[in-house]
Amino acid sequence: MGRLTRRYRVRRLRDGDWSERPDTLVVEEPLEIRVGGRAYAVTMRTPGHDFDLASGFLVSEGVVGGTQDIATIRYCTDDSPCARTAATSLQAVATGGARASLPEDGRDHILPPAQPSTETAYNIVEVTLAAGVAPPRPDIERSVYTTSSCGVCGKTALDAVNTTTRWPVAHDATQVRSSTLLALPDLLRAEQRVFSRTGGLHAAGVFAPDGRLLCLREDVGRHNAVDKILGWALQTGRLPLRGHVLQVSGRASFELVQKAVMAGIPMLSAVSAPSSLAVDLAVESGLTLAGFVRGNGMNVYTHPHRVVA
Amino acid sequence: MGRLTRRYRVRRLRDGDWSERPDTLVVEEPLEIRVGGRAYAVTMRTPGHDFDLASGFLVSEGVVGGTQDIATIRYCTDDSPCARTAATSLQAVATGGARASLPEDGRDHILPPAQPSTETAYNIVEVTLAAGVAPPRPDIERSVYTTSSCGVCGKTALDAVNTTTRWPVAHDATQVRSSTLLALPDLLRAEQRVFSRTGGLHAAGVFAPDGRLLCLREDVGRHNAVDKILGWALQTGRLPLRGHVLQVSGRASFELVQKAVMAGIPMLSAVSAPSSLAVDLAVESGLTLAGFVRGNGMNVYTHPHRVVA
Repeated sequence: MGRLTRRYRVRRLRDGDWSERPDTLVVEEPLEIRVGGRAYAVTMRTPGHDFDLASGFLVSEGVVGGTQDIATIRYCTDDSPCARTAATSLQAVATGGARASLPEDGRDHILPPAQPSTETAYNIVEVTLAAGVAPPRPDIERSVYTTSSCGVCGKTALDAVNTTTRWPVAHDATQVRSSTLLALPDLLRAEQRVFSRTGGLHAAGVFAPDGRLLCLREDVGRHNAVDKILGWALQTGRLPLRGHVLQVSGRASFELVQKAVMAGIPMLSAVSAPSSLAVDLAVESGLTLAGFVRGNGMNVYTHPHRVVA
Repeated sequence: MGRLTRRYRVRRLRDGDWSERPDTLVVEEPLEIRVGGRAYAVTMRTPGHDFDLASGFLVSEGVVGGTQDIATIRYCTDDSPCARTAATSLQAVATGGARASLPEDGRDHILPPAQPSTETAYNIVEVTLAAGVAPPRPDIERSVYTTSSCGVCGKTALDAVNTTTRWPVAHDATQVRSSTLLALPDLLRAEQRVFSRTGGLHAAGVFAPDGRLLCLREDVGRHNAVDKILGWALQTGRLPLRGHVLQVSGRASFELVQKAVMAGIPMLSAVSAPSSLAVDLAVESGLTLAGFVRGNGMNVYTHPHRVVA
């Protein structure tokens, strides 16, 4: 359970006063689930109970229905998983180290890998189905939802974004007044026509540095709301969105920071908490990330020079 | 914009009194994004601004950077898309009907399909890249995150769950007192150790009908939290989870109802709003779905006979 949270130093604004203080971030890391040596799914998750997550996902998908359907479940320890591409992960990969049958007591039975030499040692879970259990056939039975271009360790995910973006944000000289930033969530909410009727929608809005709302989109999926903003920007010839602020209604995940960076947006402001990987990507890409932006205060997690009094 | 919300009749509890009244649901439907005739992504989204969503997703992924990179973007109108499998969707599909170049004004330019005969006519967007623009190579550059086993229309998604589950919930005779149900969110929150430190976690808990918490899991992804519950149940020999209630900290999407049904759970209770497709699946599968379960009240959307005074 040691990797559930991580301490991080933030600049905190409360009632007009700035201070520095430690904040606790929830950890977000990719987990690759392999079945019979083939990559079956990659999900961004909080580490812990990974065998539950992998086997529960297979229950969700109708692949297994009881412990008798699973022969073994274990962590993989490839030699250099960070260098692997998704293509090679689709081949059977020789694994060694951690290996655990499902224990009688039903608890995660995690053995340390023989060579826990890489940071991804605990980011790949390999499930071997029992004899006679049909493996999933993703090409036939299931649709796939593609997520951010990430590998199976955080570093790979960060590097992929920073080498792919056409419009690096690090040197964007935009500055926004803290009072302007504090007002964005209310401006966003005031324009959310559907949320007020259903309570069931995420929103994303892109603002000029003076607080002017340029475009708002709502969706059941927060990533969709942001993609709709990016598509609007593309279709109206506004890409890259340099000098703008992206405000989102909920939390800031890795995926949302990624989308901002890919569109050249230098500032992301979220009403709720950011994840560890969102902060990591913001640090490396040069994006200013603010969280808990509400009423009288906010936390600025990265590159606070863009937030001025 | 006509499909953003849908009216639905619910049983409403407030301060001890039950009534029937209409509620407004946010619509959730699958959207398949095709690039060059190949299925590239399926996402559960709220209809509207679909061309923005598709093109913005391609910006997020680094595939396109401006309108010059896209030749055309249009809705597909396959003859019988509901019958298609994911396998066939990976082949180029002959399309007709809606076709629109990116317009000068940058707005969605939606032409009605020639034969808008199926409900999925607006659930597939086909993007043709401009000459010289490299298509995405999902097998090499990107990882895929597999989502619920859904097709490209809601009906397909519902049918897939109901024909796949090993443990249909329709005839589960469990009953839970409304006062017990009302107490679950606070019980869940009280046990959320990480949320209190970070504010950044979803939670899911499985409860006995008397309100006893059996297992709680937290994760940055709400689907992961539920999968961890299912995996715990599998590994402790508790599947199917007949006679239990699944409580989640946020909203109820199609995906969460699906996971409950796949594990044989007859009741799902959410602190916030359900989506249209979540309600549809609950109706068809026989699951009791409660939403806005907070303090003095709740809405019971489907199969209210399991909630007793």
